[in-house]
Amino acid sequence: MQTLLNDIKQVVGPSGLLTGDDVTQRSVDWLSGERCRAGAIVRPADTEQLAAIMTLCHDAAQPVVTHGGLTGLVHGGRAAPDELVISLERMTAIEDIDHVGATMTVQAGVPLQRVQEAAAAADLQFPLDLGARGSCTIGGNIATNAGGNRVIRYGMMRQQVLGLEAVLADGSVISSLNHMLKNNAGYDLKQLFIGSEGTLGIVTRAVLKLQPRMTSEQTALVATPSFAALTHLLGLMRQRLGGQLSAFEVMWQSHYRLLTVDSGRHSPPLPAEHPYYVIVESQGTDAEQDASRFNQALEAASEQGLISDAVLAQSSAQRQAIWAIREDVDGLIESLSPLFTFDVSLPIPDMQDYVDTLQAGLAERWPHGRMVVFGHLGDGNLHISIGIGSNDTDMRQAVEQLVYAPLAPLGGSVSAEHGIGLEKRDYLGLSRTPQEIALMRTLKQALDPKHLLNRHKVLG
Amino acid sequence: MQTLLNDIKQVVGPSGLLTGDDVTQRSVDWLSGERCRAGAIVRPADTEQLAAIMTLCHDAAQPVVTHGGLTGLVHGGRAAPDELVISLERMTAIEDIDHVGATMTVQAGVPLQRVQEAAAAADLQFPLDLGARGSCTIGGNIATNAGGNRVIRYGMMRQQVLGLEAVLADGSVISSLNHMLKNNAGYDLKQLFIGSEGTLGIVTRAVLKLQPRMTSEQTALVATPSFAALTHLLGLMRQRLGGQLSAFEVMWQSHYRLLTVDSGRHSPPLPAEHPYYVIVESQGTDAEQDASRFNQALEAASEQGLISDAVLAQSSAQRQAIWAIREDVDGLIESLSPLFTFDVSLPIPDMQDYVDTLQAGLAERWPHGRMVVFGHLGDGNLHISIGIGSNDTDMRQAVEQLVYAPLAPLGGSVSAEHGIGLEKRDYLGLSRTPQEIALMRTLKQALDPKHLLNRHKVLG
Repeated sequence: MQTLLNDIKQVVGPSGLLTGDDVTQRSVDWLSGERCRAGAIVRPADTEQLAAIMTLCHDAAQPVVTHGGLTGLVHGGRAAPDELVISLERMTAIEDIDHVGATMTVQAGVPLQRVQEAAAAADLQFPLDLGARGSCTIGGNIATNAGGNRVIRYGMMRQQVLGLEAVLADGSVISSLNHMLKNNAGYDLKQLFIGSEGTLGIVTRAVLKLQPRMTSEQTALVATPSFAALTHLLGLMRQRLGGQLSAFEVMWQSHYRLLTVDSGRHSPPLPAEHPYYVIVESQGTDAEQDASRFNQALEAASEQGLISDAVLAQSSAQRQAIWAIREDVDGLIESLSPLFTFDVSLPIPDMQDYVDTLQAGLAERWPHGRMVVFGHLGDGNLHISIGIGSNDTDMRQAVEQLVYAPLAPLGGSVSAEHGIGLEKRDYLGLSRTPQEIALMRTLKQALDPKHLLNRHKVLG
Repeated sequence: MQTLLNDIKQVVGPSGLLTGDDVTQRSVDWLSGERCRAGAIVRPADTEQLAAIMTLCHDAAQPVVTHGGLTGLVHGGRAAPDELVISLERMTAIEDIDHVGATMTVQAGVPLQRVQEAAAAADLQFPLDLGARGSCTIGGNIATNAGGNRVIRYGMMRQQVLGLEAVLADGSVISSLNHMLKNNAGYDLKQLFIGSEGTLGIVTRAVLKLQPRMTSEQTALVATPSFAALTHLLGLMRQRLGGQLSAFEVMWQSHYRLLTVDSGRHSPPLPAEHPYYVIVESQGTDAEQDASRFNQALEAASEQGLISDAVLAQSSAQRQAIWAIREDVDGLIESLSPLFTFDVSLPIPDMQDYVDTLQAGLAERWPHGRMVVFGHLGDGNLHISIGIGSNDTDMRQAVEQLVYAPLAPLGGSVSAEHGIGLEKRDYLGLSRTPQEIALMRTLKQALDPKHLLNRHKVLG
C-alpha cells in the first residue's frame, strides 16, 4: 500500500493524506463511536484529484470506502485496515445558484444545512430535511437517497437531484450535470448513483432542484383515538390542505410518553394518555389564508371524530418544542440503551397489526423489553427502537428476526430510508427477490468488476 | 423464424399471434402512418406469456420491438422484417386500487386516460397528463418517461411510479412491485426501465402513485410584454400560489397567431399582437380560497407590469377553449406540413436568445420557412415546429443542425420528453458526453448482451 500512498500524495499533497493517529482518532459512525481502522484517509480537493486517485487505486486493485458526514446508521462508513477511506470533506463548495431556473450546483461534501441556508438566502428552499442536517453531506444524502420529514410533500433526495457527477471505480468521470427538469436524451444515469450507497460510483458534484420558499408555517400536535382515525386524518389533511401538507409525523404513545412524562425530557403539550400523536404541518405563502385553511381542516377532522385533543403552535418556540420531542434521538438512546433501531416500510393499512404483533412477540420473549415506535406515516415508514438490556450479537439477531420476518409477506422493506450497508445486508433477501438481487449483482459487476467501491456493503 | 413463431403460438394461442395482412395493415407511428413491416406481432396476455416468449426469442437470438400506444414521435415503434413486434395491447387490466396508500397497480398496456378515470372514480388523481392520453399506454409512458402538462407540479412519469415489473431480454422477470413511498433496500432497479425506451427490458406491470383529487381549478390566458416579464411571472406564480401552480404553458406569438387569427381554427381569447401568451393554471381543493389566491396573484403580477392582457376562464367550456389552442397539434400539422417537430430543453435564461438565433438562421436559409414555438416554460422545455416546404432527408438534417447545434454549449438537451428512438440517435452526443454514452453501452451490454430489445434505438 505504501507505494500507492506515495503516488496518491503526489496527487493530493501532504494535507490530503491522513495516516496513523489522524486516522484512528476518527470514528466511522456517530452512534457507536467505533474508531476508523482504514489504512489511510484520502481527502481530494476536487473531482480531478479523485479521478486520479481512483485511477491509481484501480491499477493497484485497492478497495476504498467513501465517507460523507458519517451520520449513517448501517455501518456504511466502516473500513478495514487494507482499505482506504476517501473523504469528501474538502469538497464543500456551493458553486452556483440559478435564481430563475431554481437550481443550485454543489460539491458533494457540503453539509445539508449549508445548502438549506444558501437556498433560503436566495429566497428559495431546499426541502430535504432530517435531524442530522448539520453534519450529513449532500453526497451522503444522494448515495443513501435520504428521506426525512418532508417526503410527504417533496419526495426523497432522488427527487431533488437534477444532475450529478460521479467518479467510477476505474477513475472515469461521469458528468451528468443536467440543469433542466426534463431531459430524456438517453438513459438517466444519475439514478444509478442515487441510493446505491457508494457501491457503483463516488458522487462528486450535484445540481439540486430548489423550491419556492414557503413563508407561512402551521404546526399542530394532534392526538387521535385509534389507528383508523389516524389514517382517515391523513387522507383528510391531504385532501383539505390542497398540496400544502408538509409533514405528518406520528408518534405511538410509547414514544411520546417515554420522551415526555417518563423521562421528563420534554414537558408534554398534550396528556400522554392517547394511543397516537401526530405532528401535522402545512407550509404555504399566505399566512392568513393558510392558517384559516389549516384550522378549518382540523375542525373538520374534529367534527368527524378523528381528533381527541390538539394543540396549535402559536409561536416559533412552541413549534420547535413540538418538533423537539419527535427529533429527540438522544433521549431514546439515553432511555433505552443499549438499543436496536429499525427503519422499516410497509403498506399503511398493515401497520397497526404489524406493531401489535411485534409488541406481543417482544413481551413474550423479553418481558422487560421496551419498544417505541414513531414514523413518517404518509410515507409508510416506521422507526422502531427496541431495548432489551443487551446488545450482544445473538440477541440482536433474535430481535432482527422478530422485526423483519413479518415484513416479507406484507411486501414491506427492511430499509425505508437508512439503507442496507453492512447492518441489513443479510436481510436484503426478505425485501427483494432473487431475480432482483441477481440484477443488482449484474450492475455491480458491470460498473465495478474489481469490487473496489464500498466492498461487502449492500450486496456483500 | 417460422419454427420460433410456431413455438410462440403454443404460448400465446392463435389470437396472440398476428401475421401477414394483420401486420402490414397496422401503422407504427400515428404521425407518419408508416406501415408495420415486422415479421409478426405477438400479443401476450400476461407476464408469464411474455417471459416464455422472451426465453424463446433469446434462445433463437430473435430481436423484438415493443409496441405500446404508438403515439411516440421518434420512430421507436419502427420494426424491420426480421424483427418481431411485442404488443402489450392485451395487457390492459387495472388490478388494484389502494385508497389508503393511494396507489394503483396496472398492466402496462392500459391507456393513460383509463388510469386517470379510475383514479378520479376513487376520489384520487393520477396527475400525468398529455394530449395523447386516450391512446398512449402506461407502459409507454414509463418506457419514455413521459412528461406533459403538469410536470411543473407533479414531475414526470418517473415520479409517479412506485414499483414496476419488467421482463428482461433473457426472459427473466424482475418484479419490483413496491407499494411504499420509501424503500431503500438495495438498488432502485425500476429506474433502469423508466426512460430507457424499452432497450433494457419490457415493462409489464406498474404500481402508480396517486395524488389527492383537486376539486377546484383556476385557468387564465395571460399575455406578457417581454420574455423577462414571462420568467418573472413564473417566479411570482410559483411563490404566490404556494405549491398549487399546476401548469405554466407558454405560446410564442408565432404559435398563438397561427392557430387563431391566421388559420381561423380558434377564436382568439386575446388579441394576437402580444409577444408571449401563457396558460396559467392552479389546482386546489377550496374553490373560494383558491380563486381568491389566484386572482390576487394575477393582480400582483399586473401591478408589477408583468401582464399586458389576461382573460380568466369563467366556465369549463372557456377553460377547454383556452387549452384547445395549446393542444391543437392537428392545426400545426395542417398549417405547416410538411413539418419538422423538435422537443428541446435548455436553461430558461437562455431561451429567448436561443429562439431568436434559430429564427434568424431559419430566415436566412429559408426565407419562406415558418417556425412556431410553444412549451412548458417552467420545465425548461420548448416544442419547436418548423415548416420549410420540404421534408427530404437533406433538408431535415440541415434543420436539425440549426436546432440542435446551439444546445450543446448551453448544456441543453435534444430531447426533453420525446426520447431518442431512431430519430435523434445521431444527435445524442450533442447532449451527453462520450463517458456517459460509454456507460449507457455498458448497461445495455450487461442487461441485453445479444441486443434483442429495440435494436438500433437510442444507442444504435
